Amino acid sequence: MHDIIIIGGGPSGLTAALYALRANKSVLILEKENFGGQIANSPKVENYPTIKEISGSDLTDLMVNQVMDMGAEFELEDVEKVEKNGSIFEVYTNYGKHEGKTVIIANGVRHRTLGLPKEEELIGKGVYYCAVCDGPMYKGKEVYLIGDANTALQYAVLLSGYCTKVHMFCLFDHFFGDPILQDRVREKENVEVTFNMNLVEYKGEEHLEGLVFENTQTHELKEFKTDNVFVSVGQIPDNDKFANLVELEKGFILTDEDMCTKTPGIYACGDTRKKAIKQVVTACNDGAIAAMSAVKYLN
Amino acid sequence: MHDIIIIGGGPSGLTAALYALRANKSVLILEKENFGGQIANSPKVENYPTIKEISGSDLTDLMVNQVMDMGAEFELEDVEKVEKNGSIFEVYTNYGKHEGKTVIIANGVRHRTLGLPKEEELIGKGVYYCAVCDGPMYKGKEVYLIGDANTALQYAVLLSGYCTKVHMFCLFDHFFGDPILQDRVREKENVEVTFNMNLVEYKGEEHLEGLVFENTQTHELKEFKTDNVFVSVGQIPDNDKFANLVELEKGFILTDEDMCTKTPGIYACGDTRKKAIKQVVTACNDGAIAAMSAVKYLN
Repeated sequence: MHDIIIIGGGPSGLTAALYALRANKSVLILEKENFGGQIANSPKVENYPTIKEISGSDLTDLMVNQVMDMGAEFELEDVEKVEKNGSIFEVYTNYGKHEGKTVIIANGVRHRTLGLPKEEELIGKGVYYCAVCDGPMYKGKEVYLIGDANTALQYAVLLSGYCTKVHMFCLFDHFFGDPILQDRVREKENVEVTFNMNLVEYKGEEHLEGLVFENTQTHELKEFKTDNVFVSVGQIPDNDKFANLVELEKGFILTDEDMCTKTPGIYACGDTRKKAIKQVVTACNDGAIAAMSAVKYLN
Repeated sequence: MHDIIIIGGGPSGLTAALYALRANKSVLILEKENFGGQIANSPKVENYPTIKEISGSDLTDLMVNQVMDMGAEFELEDVEKVEKNGSIFEVYTNYGKHEGKTVIIANGVRHRTLGLPKEEELIGKGVYYCAVCDGPMYKGKEVYLIGDANTALQYAVLLSGYCTKVHMFCLFDHFFGDPILQDRVREKENVEVTFNMNLVEYKGEEHLEGLVFENTQTHELKEFKTDNVFVSVGQIPDNDKFANLVELEKGFILTDEDMCTKTPGIYACGDTRKKAIKQVVTACNDGAIAAMSAVKYLN
């Protein structure tokens, strides 16, 4: 029996663990893939207060080590459902069951796909969502990139550093990311941005062979031959499995400012909850508050 | 003319600067005393995500350097009032006037005093509010400490490290701080805690000579001879001067979750606003959000 089971090992879940452990509560962190969350895939983080520049994975390593030293338990398990049994929460994973007096949901979001035919089959075979992870395979080659916000802009800068050319396609007629990142992309001579382009078809069977875009203004179709594309079009939450205990809006968990959900003892924090601004430091904020609310409930 | 004038150079104001500068906005930070805010006086910070242990002043130095490198302007000036002149805000200080298109109030809080006769005159003459700053004067001696929450508990641990004895007095019958800090204080053999004690009188004229406490249960008075006392009984905001532009509740500024006040173009963040949980990381959160709201307004 754990005082607090934290679902998700990104900045928000790790900060929740930090605050829970400091309050002498026992903590189990369940992470389905990689500790560190989405930011661990970011090549360069420059907006975390106190740190001028760091890779996302180094940043989250610091957080993981911090709570590991304090005695947090970690398990690499995928949570499938949570059930309330009296005053106890039963957390079912792909490996078994854990019991907790409280649960903090900090499971973040996952990559949004374009939902086109063959996309699923071509993942890892030319279709990628993480330029940090998979970009280096295309060093010295031309790459294709779809997206218009911060992550896509960061990917453009990153890829331009070691690829001969980055062909970047945006759905609308402008970028949505930070002006400073937009400027950096514009400064790169080997990044060619085409606006008003909507991907409508993946070409290829065993491996990606091409992309067909529709110009959203002229409705003209244009095909590009390529063996790769990096899709960076946002993230979606994965909370339907918690719908028995929390209220959802477009998949995101509704909480009050204390990170409380509609079920006492269940809290949500970070990117998985409905909120406007999603940064590492705001995720950490949520985690600290969620833990303090859980500790208050436990005491 | 600055895009954003930030009043206060603590974690919240510095994070606001970080986010504003990343959005290519010009930033002036006005701080009346010391950059770093209240936390800069904390001997040991162990709950900032990514950093296992650091002094408050080292922590905030990291933040100051980060935004200084990005081109923030700093002035050591005390803001006296802010006036709206058309679409411009005029910020008056003890040195002159600055103009900004937006203003972020991140002026934190200041030490709460006990409001007893002679307290004002005895400040620095036996009466202190910051054990980090003034504690070392009493190395190898006995010290007196009043307070019951996190800062007081941290002071008790700190002082016990180099003082022969810490006499700690709490107004109620229990501590209010983090359990982990409470435990640490209880473990210290040279910290003697007395509960239910209310300071009612300072003895001494040129320098503190003694303290008179009333036991809140028995109403008995008890005098202790001492040439020092560290008063750590909380903080209060200093926002009456902004009452023409923002709404206040018990001196704290009311904002929505985007850190907007009732005046468009004026934002508040960190400990100075009305909120439940006040930690470094929650102050940083507020600063990031305030800056993003200001940038949105400017664009």
